[in-house]
Amino acid sequence: MAEIPPLGEMNLDDFRRTGHQLIDWVAAYLAHPEACPVLSRSRPGEIKAQLPDAPPAGPESMDDILADFENIIMPGITHWNHPGFFAYFGITGSAPGILGELLTAALDVNAMLWRTSPAATELEETVLDWFRQMLGLSAAWDGVMTDGASASSLIAMAAARQSLPNLHIRVKGLAGRADMPRLRVYISDQTHSSVEKAAITLGVGQENVVKIESDEAFQMKPAALETAVSADLAAGYRPFFVCATVGTTSSTSIDPVPAVAAIARKFNLWLHVDGAYGGAAAIVPEKRYVLAGVEQADSLVVNPHKWLFTPLDLSTFFTRHPDIVRRAFSLLPEYLRSAETDARAVKDYMDYGVQLGRRFRALKLWMVIRTYGVDGLAARLTEHMRLARQFAGWVDDSAEFERMAPVPFSVVCFRAHPAGMDDEAALERLNHKLIEAVNATGEVFMSHTKLRGRYTVRLAIGNIRTEAAHVKRAWELCRAALQSMPEAE
Amino acid sequence: MAEIPPLGEMNLDDFRRTGHQLIDWVAAYLAHPEACPVLSRSRPGEIKAQLPDAPPAGPESMDDILADFENIIMPGITHWNHPGFFAYFGITGSAPGILGELLTAALDVNAMLWRTSPAATELEETVLDWFRQMLGLSAAWDGVMTDGASASSLIAMAAARQSLPNLHIRVKGLAGRADMPRLRVYISDQTHSSVEKAAITLGVGQENVVKIESDEAFQMKPAALETAVSADLAAGYRPFFVCATVGTTSSTSIDPVPAVAAIARKFNLWLHVDGAYGGAAAIVPEKRYVLAGVEQADSLVVNPHKWLFTPLDLSTFFTRHPDIVRRAFSLLPEYLRSAETDARAVKDYMDYGVQLGRRFRALKLWMVIRTYGVDGLAARLTEHMRLARQFAGWVDDSAEFERMAPVPFSVVCFRAHPAGMDDEAALERLNHKLIEAVNATGEVFMSHTKLRGRYTVRLAIGNIRTEAAHVKRAWELCRAALQSMPEAE
Repeated sequence: MAEIPPLGEMNLDDFRRTGHQLIDWVAAYLAHPEACPVLSRSRPGEIKAQLPDAPPAGPESMDDILADFENIIMPGITHWNHPGFFAYFGITGSAPGILGELLTAALDVNAMLWRTSPAATELEETVLDWFRQMLGLSAAWDGVMTDGASASSLIAMAAARQSLPNLHIRVKGLAGRADMPRLRVYISDQTHSSVEKAAITLGVGQENVVKIESDEAFQMKPAALETAVSADLAAGYRPFFVCATVGTTSSTSIDPVPAVAAIARKFNLWLHVDGAYGGAAAIVPEKRYVLAGVEQADSLVVNPHKWLFTPLDLSTFFTRHPDIVRRAFSLLPEYLRSAETDARAVKDYMDYGVQLGRRFRALKLWMVIRTYGVDGLAARLTEHMRLARQFAGWVDDSAEFERMAPVPFSVVCFRAHPAGMDDEAALERLNHKLIEAVNATGEVFMSHTKLRGRYTVRLAIGNIRTEAAHVKRAWELCRAALQSMPEAE
Repeated sequence: MAEIPPLGEMNLDDFRRTGHQLIDWVAAYLAHPEACPVLSRSRPGEIKAQLPDAPPAGPESMDDILADFENIIMPGITHWNHPGFFAYFGITGSAPGILGELLTAALDVNAMLWRTSPAATELEETVLDWFRQMLGLSAAWDGVMTDGASASSLIAMAAARQSLPNLHIRVKGLAGRADMPRLRVYISDQTHSSVEKAAITLGVGQENVVKIESDEAFQMKPAALETAVSADLAAGYRPFFVCATVGTTSSTSIDPVPAVAAIARKFNLWLHVDGAYGGAAAIVPEKRYVLAGVEQADSLVVNPHKWLFTPLDLSTFFTRHPDIVRRAFSLLPEYLRSAETDARAVKDYMDYGVQLGRRFRALKLWMVIRTYGVDGLAARLTEHMRLARQFAGWVDDSAEFERMAPVPFSVVCFRAHPAGMDDEAALERLNHKLIEAVNATGEVFMSHTKLRGRYTVRLAIGNIRTEAAHVKRAWELCRAALQSMPEAE
């Protein structure tokens, strides 16, 4: 007689035993995050080579799976949750956020309709409103949670497109219409690539993304924006969207939102503010000014999964025009109709974006905000900014390093610049090697950018477990790496 | 002296204690899922009214947070993880998937670049290849994980748009071009709304989504497709994309993919197959045929978070043209360049879709596949289909109910149809009330659709904990509800 495979869920005693084991594992991981090198030392193909080419026909034990997790997967992890992670933007899967994710996975709720979990929708409304207040936004703003700033900025641009009068873009599309002008959107030369990708996706086209020059502090030049829009109008283009950034990705510069807003108003452009990283700083009373002018904008994105200790993924999209967003995206097939929806008594978040299926993301942010409290969150951001200023001070005081940009938040742009070495190509080689040497220690992970074509090292502070000692160590490692290089001798 | 708020992570002893408590909570939840009514009895606004209007300034204890979770949030949860959840499509956050999510949250890895966690990228490659084999797809297929079918189908249509020769849509966009024909995409009158939403988002426009009539079994009529494409070509449109569905949302019908593929080939259309729900059945050897013809398609979506016991969110997008997808979406800013990327030695998954930031989704699917094994997963799907056929048999044998569609998978479309009641409006009222009565018991949750305008009840089986007794109970509740209705007397 052939063996009949068991049905149903895995044995729950095994689940409980493994779950307790994993909680202890996570607690130990969070307590000793420096046990692993922050940047994985894995070589391309090395992980894959250790995994079977084909899936197992029969069940395997959780012990075997977790042994492989430890032995094969862990060496291939770059530790974003490590206090020495200073690359890109520092982020945190904090302890309360991890517990929130555990509950979200267990409930496995789809937050597409109010009916498909009233608490998921209403907690999302509540937490978004809490966050709105924390950011100092007026009650005119309404929000929705998405998986990331790429989705949030795409929603913004799609709503802007939808708001163009008399063009009926949702229904008629963009192509093959005699009445459709060429569209134009405006970003700065520092804007995140996701906004350009949104223009590609939405059919605006990459060449219709006009990159406005930024000034010496990497802030969009309003006069250049006005000139570009005027020239495009004269040339028959239809400008409809501009993105200003609070905390650009390379240098964390802050575009002059009030001036950009005035131009947006003059030319009737939708103003989207990308505060994916820097917007969070507005929860600190002394930094509230970073969102100055945003009340004149049409939409805003801030990502709690960046600098608010919430595990990936959770981006918040706010707009003063939820009705337009809804007109751009709402589609209600019969199989999703419900009495509450028909009565317009509830909000169905599926109406406010591309995604129908949506995770219950509000739970983890609710737990993060309550665990630390608003003042506690603000204190942690303040400390990150203090550490960044301290590091910037060391750079400024050094004869061998130079700062490459102002430090309005928690990111320091700098590079080694030994006396007498003024060839940009040589400086790029030197600093590239410096980063590689520092990252090879396993103690910190830093990444680079280019500012005005100049290769730049970035120290991005954002992990909740990052302390003064980690930042000091990063500086020591940079200096040591420079000393050890033959080019610098 | 003002109190200085503590910095850093929450107390890890608290984390460990709460984590153990939550693991026991989840184990009990999974062991006794019927403790809660499956459809929440919450009324609009009821949850929100119990939550504070403003966030707390100071920290709150995990005990307080979890008490609110139990007392406020839980009553507002519609239990997708309940074995009596038969609405929409039945899904499962299975025990190994929940453990996978716990680890994903703890690591908090961004799987955008290979470098940002080699194991996240290489496990995604491996698990996608495992799943490809499980579905019986040839090695010509390459995949990427997304958050849902809405994103996956949008990627498909964007790639199709990109593949149009000589139009350079990525760069030039769609609008205001004399050389740009009006674009057309083809779906059936049963296709999921997300494909129409993709056309709206991508600028194709809702009126350029041609809905091909389906036959009496709700399968797209290939002859009607051919006629529509020919007519559009004659009228100067540019047809470029067709979507066939394996397991439509209303009735789980299967479009004739081989015939659609032949037409797609003839007219050079990109053929996307939406197997978000039904595609998973192909892992059952006897059901492998449901993907017949897919080798002639250009892309395919199957969602492990639907009928493969993986917690939300995880959709798999497969294509035979990863190069075209990459051309449609890849953007590499300086701050994301790495040596491995420059050497083209690795895959960076951010190149294959809208999203830059990406959760480490492969881990949970890896743990699900290994825990149950391929044969074990197939056995569970087989059992779901057996239970659906059994329920369909009861409907067929009843004088008071009628079946509304064939049952190729695990969903039964049916309705009460008492002898002599032939007015469609009366039948709609009756069946709407029947669903409400059944759902009010808290034992099961069913949803509806309309098929050929006729109001239809759906019983969708898909939870790993659903057993014969739950399906039998659903049938008893339907019969009891009908008996109790004055209309049916």
